[in-house]
Amino acid sequence: MQKISIAIHGGAGTILKEQMTPELEASFREGLQQALDLGYTVLQNGGTAVDAVKAAVINLEDNILFNAGKGSVFTNDGFNEMDASIMDGKTLNAGAVAGVQHIKNPIQLAEEVMLYSGHVFLSGKGANDFARMRGIDIEPDEYFYSQFRYDQLQEIKDSDNYQLDHKANKLSVIKDKKFGTVGAVACDGEGNIAAATSTGGMTNKRYGRIGDTPVIGAGTYANNKTCAVSCTGHGEIFIKAVAAYDVSCLMEYKNMNLQEACEEVVMKKLAAMNGDGGLIAVDAKGDTVLIFNSAGMYRGQKSSDGTNNISIYGNDQLK
Amino acid sequence: MQKISIAIHGGAGTILKEQMTPELEASFREGLQQALDLGYTVLQNGGTAVDAVKAAVINLEDNILFNAGKGSVFTNDGFNEMDASIMDGKTLNAGAVAGVQHIKNPIQLAEEVMLYSGHVFLSGKGANDFARMRGIDIEPDEYFYSQFRYDQLQEIKDSDNYQLDHKANKLSVIKDKKFGTVGAVACDGEGNIAAATSTGGMTNKRYGRIGDTPVIGAGTYANNKTCAVSCTGHGEIFIKAVAAYDVSCLMEYKNMNLQEACEEVVMKKLAAMNGDGGLIAVDAKGDTVLIFNSAGMYRGQKSSDGTNNISIYGNDQLK
Repeated sequence: MQKISIAIHGGAGTILKEQMTPELEASFREGLQQALDLGYTVLQNGGTAVDAVKAAVINLEDNILFNAGKGSVFTNDGFNEMDASIMDGKTLNAGAVAGVQHIKNPIQLAEEVMLYSGHVFLSGKGANDFARMRGIDIEPDEYFYSQFRYDQLQEIKDSDNYQLDHKANKLSVIKDKKFGTVGAVACDGEGNIAAATSTGGMTNKRYGRIGDTPVIGAGTYANNKTCAVSCTGHGEIFIKAVAAYDVSCLMEYKNMNLQEACEEVVMKKLAAMNGDGGLIAVDAKGDTVLIFNSAGMYRGQKSSDGTNNISIYGNDQLK
Repeated sequence: MQKISIAIHGGAGTILKEQMTPELEASFREGLQQALDLGYTVLQNGGTAVDAVKAAVINLEDNILFNAGKGSVFTNDGFNEMDASIMDGKTLNAGAVAGVQHIKNPIQLAEEVMLYSGHVFLSGKGANDFARMRGIDIEPDEYFYSQFRYDQLQEIKDSDNYQLDHKANKLSVIKDKKFGTVGAVACDGEGNIAAATSTGGMTNKRYGRIGDTPVIGAGTYANNKTCAVSCTGHGEIFIKAVAAYDVSCLMEYKNMNLQEACEEVVMKKLAAMNGDGGLIAVDAKGDTVLIFNSAGMYRGQKSSDGTNNISIYGNDQLK
């Protein structure tokens, strides 16, 4: 019988237990479990992998704790600019958006791009025009505003520093690296797989920077033949490494299994390039891998074999 | 002794001899030869592969015949929005820009992004701000204006059609597919390789569409270990196929040579996805491949082994 599974992440980086309060940790765990349960329920009810990853990512986008959708960080200009992408491993169809504003759920817009635009990748104001045409939920600046995120910006504004991440526990500029991204991969009852990734980018980012999140092949990839992958990490390095597609190629061309391919990319290739971060992946058998070369990654997995766990620290997938 | 070589393209698609006038064909050939010679001279003088591909692409961007830089087509709004990317096979450094306006040479901006931004991929107004800060040449709308391109837009505006290409020979809406992109790959005297790609996008394009040109892994990739690749074709399909990096993976993981890997990607994988177009590639031995699954591709190659040719039709690389 086909195993159904879903895995999610809420970003990777220098996430250390000593920097976390018990209350905050509980909130993160609760948020991850909620998104995981939502996505898994879609699969349980016979929904597709695409619908499952979308449901999980929408929930994470709606959670202010994670740097995506509502919880997006502020750019140098004081706005929120978000990126997202989704890919269907059955058809290789894909949709992505970069630098969109006021979109409640960028992953939903990415799916609309995939289904209705005739294109794969839309950006900026044009992508917002497409969203309006498709009747996608638009929210005012206030929806994305949080005192916490705003304070975060003020601290590092007018510096050349930028933050790639959440700073979840205290209001000082973190020298540590954290990468605020959310993502999901899933395998449905038909053995179809899909991946989705969404981010609010970097605090204080400038120049319309695009990271790996909306880049098919880098931050997101899915192909029933091999795997579905969603990445989180130092986006520039993940782009140069074409990280998500690399996992797929190692499986397709070098006959590695999912675990071997993920280890090769994250622990060897990305690590050698100082590409801090991690990824989650699933294959068409429903096996999952959640792996990272940083101190922690907000993550969870749930499967019809009884697996159901949420983790933040450590790296439980290294064998 | 290390062979030095350069290959360039000026777009692929339904380019048929019967649709071409002798004068126009001569102009295309002359333009291609000029860019080829310029890039080759850089290599001959001991310049790097990066400098060679940049010189060739800048020349093609300055030529109104090709859909990049000065010759860029108009978007639905009546503006020019350009994309470009460059990658250095020695370091895996890369730079890319999407949706930039008024930039005389987008490939030069892509190189500035690679060298000075701390990022890989900048877009839209932010990328233009970065250009201004770096003192990149800015040109007014008139520089990019040509009656021919404008007429081309008026013909298909307010339709849902868009053109992916040049329409070089007559002023009627071409139902054929042509993909207006320019690109170069080179191998220098040190055995370092590089790739660069630049485009003015699609006539009548909307919604801030981004094609494969600025997507590292899709339209452009370079790695001394394997190959440097610049693509031209139906960008959406090239993104889903992660076409440029796929050539590299087939060489690295499946031990194909450059010719085999390019044939596999263009003639089999892309063709099976209806991914019309082609690519040029070079490896660190200085061997080149110029291949396409469409009727023609504007192309040229020049090498220290005496090779020096320009072609438009046919597919002289299939063995």
